[in-house]
Amino acid sequence: MSSVKRTSRDIRTANRYEVLRQIIAESPTSRQELAAATGLSLATVATLVGELLDLRLITEVGFEDSAGGRPRGLVAVNTTGGALIGVDIAETYVRVELFDLALNVLARADEDMRPGESRPEQVVGHVAAAVGSVVTQAGVEGARVLGVGVSVPGQVDREGGVSEYAPNWDWHDVPLLDLLAEHIAYPLYLDNPLRACAVAELWFGAARGRGDAVVVNLGTGVGAGLVLGGGLHRGVSNSAGEWGHTTLVLDGRLCHCGNHGCVETYVGAPGIMLHLRELAPQSTLLHPEDQTATIDALARGVADGDPVALKVVRDTARYLGAGIADLVNLLNPEVVVLSSWVAATLGEPLLAEVRQAVARHSLRRPLDAAEIVLSPIPTDPVCLGAATFALEGALSSFSQRPARRAVPARSRTASAS
Amino acid sequence: MSSVKRTSRDIRTANRYEVLRQIIAESPTSRQELAAATGLSLATVATLVGELLDLRLITEVGFEDSAGGRPRGLVAVNTTGGALIGVDIAETYVRVELFDLALNVLARADEDMRPGESRPEQVVGHVAAAVGSVVTQAGVEGARVLGVGVSVPGQVDREGGVSEYAPNWDWHDVPLLDLLAEHIAYPLYLDNPLRACAVAELWFGAARGRGDAVVVNLGTGVGAGLVLGGGLHRGVSNSAGEWGHTTLVLDGRLCHCGNHGCVETYVGAPGIMLHLRELAPQSTLLHPEDQTATIDALARGVADGDPVALKVVRDTARYLGAGIADLVNLLNPEVVVLSSWVAATLGEPLLAEVRQAVARHSLRRPLDAAEIVLSPIPTDPVCLGAATFALEGALSSFSQRPARRAVPARSRTASAS
Repeated sequence: MSSVKRTSRDIRTANRYEVLRQIIAESPTSRQELAAATGLSLATVATLVGELLDLRLITEVGFEDSAGGRPRGLVAVNTTGGALIGVDIAETYVRVELFDLALNVLARADEDMRPGESRPEQVVGHVAAAVGSVVTQAGVEGARVLGVGVSVPGQVDREGGVSEYAPNWDWHDVPLLDLLAEHIAYPLYLDNPLRACAVAELWFGAARGRGDAVVVNLGTGVGAGLVLGGGLHRGVSNSAGEWGHTTLVLDGRLCHCGNHGCVETYVGAPGIMLHLRELAPQSTLLHPEDQTATIDALARGVADGDPVALKVVRDTARYLGAGIADLVNLLNPEVVVLSSWVAATLGEPLLAEVRQAVARHSLRRPLDAAEIVLSPIPTDPVCLGAATFALEGALSSFSQRPARRAVPARSRTASAS
Repeated sequence: MSSVKRTSRDIRTANRYEVLRQIIAESPTSRQELAAATGLSLATVATLVGELLDLRLITEVGFEDSAGGRPRGLVAVNTTGGALIGVDIAETYVRVELFDLALNVLARADEDMRPGESRPEQVVGHVAAAVGSVVTQAGVEGARVLGVGVSVPGQVDREGGVSEYAPNWDWHDVPLLDLLAEHIAYPLYLDNPLRACAVAELWFGAARGRGDAVVVNLGTGVGAGLVLGGGLHRGVSNSAGEWGHTTLVLDGRLCHCGNHGCVETYVGAPGIMLHLRELAPQSTLLHPEDQTATIDALARGVADGDPVALKVVRDTARYLGAGIADLVNLLNPEVVVLSSWVAATLGEPLLAEVRQAVARHSLRRPLDAAEIVLSPIPTDPVCLGAATFALEGALSSFSQRPARRAVPARSRTASAS
């Protein structure tokens, strides 16, 4: 049996995603407009719209005139038809957001994690508290929560719900979804921030409608979510995207992964702090134990024309540019999106320097084809992407009816067995 | 209109490739065996087999008993139903092979190119002579040649038939297919050796039936053909795979692409020669103007236990290992295939060192999933892949009937307009 066969079910799922994405982007809309926007036939759109109506993800909202013809039925996202929760477990905080079905944020809860507070039970406790908080804040009934997407840094076994390796905490094979299912009764879906950010851009951001996109994630950790052929590229064991652990400087800085000269050691927040410390050990920009405060200070310093801040950002852009040029030369994407909090904080000045550095390092043909942009997503892209995994889970469990629930979904009942 | 919509035509084409691949791999075979091997339904297989019979690419060859049931019809590749030609334009030679439809080599012609003999007209002259030679040698009628696939190093505009940039000759925007069409009357298809080697592995080699594979091409130039999601990943402007021009050593050796520290400058044949020269300027292994002779000498030196040869191969493997680990971490492939003449010449000793180096540089999860092998293709993989492009062209022109010929196909008639 070939492992690569594309089935008509794959196509149906991809087309269902595409139609729902379009309805979320432009509600209300008609089947005719959807057919024009997606390139699908009107008959296909009508079938998919029927399925989404059955799922109560969308709703009929009246008719529009059509220049003398029959009035066209309009559909829109059924914002109150369900809620989705996205969980962003980061190195220093847990953020949880509850969304309506148009992926608007209805409630948010943040929990800070103190340095050293990194045992799985501690993290699970923070997540459970924050999930309880957003459900209460939003006043939604539990039955209306379609699912909870959970993003945890590092390498994850998505089907098994296991955090296989989280480098910043040195977690190994932590059965995270089983632990969470002791506290959370909704279907749970696990993945990592690289893929959460990529799927957020694919559904709602700069990768929408693009065939090939790279979503570069700049935070404490660094990676690249890959959108190839219009869908998320996971690789054979769901660990694609570890660009942060590709070599930029052979025999360079030691990385916590054990390798030397990894991209992450130069352009992740700790790497940027190290560069600042080497350059100006006494700089007031440096907040030794606080990555967020330091990156904030660098952004303000650049705005104020502080020469040390300018040099740190320029040098970081130089490393980033060489690393992003590698992605451009290797993958020939339509767009490279800079995402996550370091990119958002350093913003346009970083982008301008990165564009110049990429141009110096790339081959002309792939460079000409690649746009480089900051993520246009105004909220936490990891929460949004994690919630999108829950939405995708709800959509695929529909396509598998009456078969059993999708594998990655867990509930308290399931884990009790 | 979405640029990413997957259509049922894409699926049909992919399934037609899959069925033909299976028939080429195991002839004669029955529709029932094909359905079992490909995972497609018997009805789908029957339709696709009907199309391939209409195209005369396969033929009915009798029946087999089926344990008391109705005898099953057997089909096989119609080896005499047509011929395919693959052209490998390399930096120092032109090789042309003529294949039957089972992709057996029926005739071969090699033309050496002297250093400096690099004008497009000179190269075109060699190709035309060699194509004429293989058709004459094989004694096939011109009408039976279904197409000629042409591989040229560097970046190519496939649709336009243009060699946009061939770094070793400093070609820019050479309309290669138009030039060739003045001499060659068969449909012509242009691409580069990275993608030719990748498609050869996908159809006939180590990537068959694999979802995600990387075909690392080690010759004068270096690159990585990417098989992702069961098909060739071309990128948005057909230039994906330029792994040779990703940075391995920031600010390292100057590359002819203008960048510094590119993978190619360390593991391409000229880079290996440079390392040998730096290490042992007087070594008898070194043939200053002859890459092939030098790599051959290194292979013999390793076999004889020559310490300089051993060190050069070990150091090359170290660079290669770091670069391949980048591909493993970023793309999470099932298999990495070492292809092209440098890999074939240095063979098992290089492979063993590379495997160790990749293990030192990769993350555990993607490393565990990735097999690293030498290409199992016994003939020139570039010629085979180029001929496969011609086969794919013939298959897709069928799916477009009665529409006009596939865009990349050119003929003398077309170019005269």
